[in-house]
Amino acid sequence: MVVVLTLSREAAITVADLGEFGLIAAIQEILPPDTTAIVGVGDDAAVLPAPDGRTVASTDLLIEGRHFRRVWSTGRDIGVKAAAQNLADIAAMGAVPTALLFGLAVPADTAVTWVLELTEGLVAECDRAGAVIAGGDVTGADTVMLGITALGNLGGREPVTRRGARPGDVLAISGMVGRSAAGLAILQAGVDPASAPGLADLVAAHRRPRPDYQAGPLAAAAGATAMIDISDGLVADVGHVGAASGVRVDIEAARLPIPGLREAAALLGADWRDWALGGGEDHALAASFPAGASLPTGWLVIGTIGRGNGVLVDNRPWHGRGGWDHFPAC
Amino acid sequence: MVVVLTLSREAAITVADLGEFGLIAAIQEILPPDTTAIVGVGDDAAVLPAPDGRTVASTDLLIEGRHFRRVWSTGRDIGVKAAAQNLADIAAMGAVPTALLFGLAVPADTAVTWVLELTEGLVAECDRAGAVIAGGDVTGADTVMLGITALGNLGGREPVTRRGARPGDVLAISGMVGRSAAGLAILQAGVDPASAPGLADLVAAHRRPRPDYQAGPLAAAAGATAMIDISDGLVADVGHVGAASGVRVDIEAARLPIPGLREAAALLGADWRDWALGGGEDHALAASFPAGASLPTGWLVIGTIGRGNGVLVDNRPWHGRGGWDHFPAC
Repeated sequence: MVVVLTLSREAAITVADLGEFGLIAAIQEILPPDTTAIVGVGDDAAVLPAPDGRTVASTDLLIEGRHFRRVWSTGRDIGVKAAAQNLADIAAMGAVPTALLFGLAVPADTAVTWVLELTEGLVAECDRAGAVIAGGDVTGADTVMLGITALGNLGGREPVTRRGARPGDVLAISGMVGRSAAGLAILQAGVDPASAPGLADLVAAHRRPRPDYQAGPLAAAAGATAMIDISDGLVADVGHVGAASGVRVDIEAARLPIPGLREAAALLGADWRDWALGGGEDHALAASFPAGASLPTGWLVIGTIGRGNGVLVDNRPWHGRGGWDHFPAC
Repeated sequence: MVVVLTLSREAAITVADLGEFGLIAAIQEILPPDTTAIVGVGDDAAVLPAPDGRTVASTDLLIEGRHFRRVWSTGRDIGVKAAAQNLADIAAMGAVPTALLFGLAVPADTAVTWVLELTEGLVAECDRAGAVIAGGDVTGADTVMLGITALGNLGGREPVTRRGARPGDVLAISGMVGRSAAGLAILQAGVDPASAPGLADLVAAHRRPRPDYQAGPLAAAAGATAMIDISDGLVADVGHVGAASGVRVDIEAARLPIPGLREAAALLGADWRDWALGGGEDHALAASFPAGASLPTGWLVIGTIGRGNGVLVDNRPWHGRGGWDHFPAC
């Protein structure tokens, strides 16, 4: 096994050189010892503790050229991002992420080093969330594709769905919005991130989102009535909460935490509100709380819940960039 | 919603016409009501019962052109096959499949009818296994890709891993081998399945494997010492059991259940043993049992477990087709 790993760290070694089972062995070699799984990586299925008698589960696909580009992100960046977006879905239910399963499709000429870096990114983000990698699948494909499933533990709490927001609640977020979209815009414009203060942080936010996984369970414990992971864009995602709960959502733009966004937008000739209100992939959490509830550390009120439907920004419908549709009309 | 569904059944309507959220709505429309999930489809994550305090989980990717071809299989066939191969992994641990999550990537010009047929195939196979569809994700891609995760319930039993086979055990299988490979060979050769008796059954076995999901939990209850889903080929997969258990596996070819295989091989000028010993994707289960154990209905002894390592077929190493490698050396 050590021989495989040593060989596989040479940049010239491709996935085809190792073969499927060699690649799996090389990946398993760098996974940290899993002390929580009852049956871990390497069998037909993993067996994991579900101590409160329930399992929280979410799955996502990431496709090269649509969700990431290898020229803009390292293998490690892509691993971090893939793990983060799924683990954040678990936190958004009020659960603690516990395990991750990943399917990886790569072209045969992919460098094994790249696959191992991606795995290291998955491992690092799981580690940050307190989760383990419990299983996976590798296969060939013409482009890189990832299928990620995250599991979590509610620890006896009731799940916080999208359906419980009530008129009179406040709307709050944990984390920042628009940073990933700003970082992507900087990369797309070919602007040197070192050319102005703050740009590098925005590019890093695009490459490696940093959800606060504890914010979800803390919000649940504090009485959050509804919660969602902001993956498609703030307006689009709180719109999902509004639709599921049968309420109107009012956002006050001036309350949004957007450090560095106005400056970067001015530099690029862009509108910071497009990023903050329409940009996805920051994986901040949005939640509604009863008015007067004591919000956990890190949660910031950005609006209110009212009677009606739809999303208003500063009392007006939002007509800017509207969030992400994976099948935009041609 | 009904309007969406009615529209979406017209063959000319594409995924791009509906958009991501319209497609999700159309898919949700045909999912049967889920009476088991605590939180089902349509939130950030599903919340599912895990009544014995453990969860069994397995994930797989299926890529167009590698795991299926749309010219050879209908959307429904592909849905059935994608569900079956993951649900069989759960059964192979001795667990009862309970839920399935699916990620679906499709080109924007894909007919919505095709996506709905695929969903119907997933639903039908989940129904056959007693599982529900608990969540999913849709996105665009240049080719069709599926990321499937299956979950299961051990019902208080110990998981049956690949590691427990002992010298003196018998080797048994539930289900047949080589049928999917034979069906694929018939399709590849362009032979009309109606041209000889039995060919249509083999093609059907390739398109829609029919694992016996109860066979896994029954084997566990009967004392199976090790178990595996035959996905890569009989020799390759019992080889995994042998390697994990530190034992030798002896197969008696004459005992293999291969109805129709010899006749089809003669017709195509192929070797039936290549199909039966090397062909994957039938998703039969192989398990070792203590000598003298009373095997559950449907399980058939095909060999023995001995001291040593490797796999022997009729006392000789097998040099035929060796199972499936997703990155064959060029």
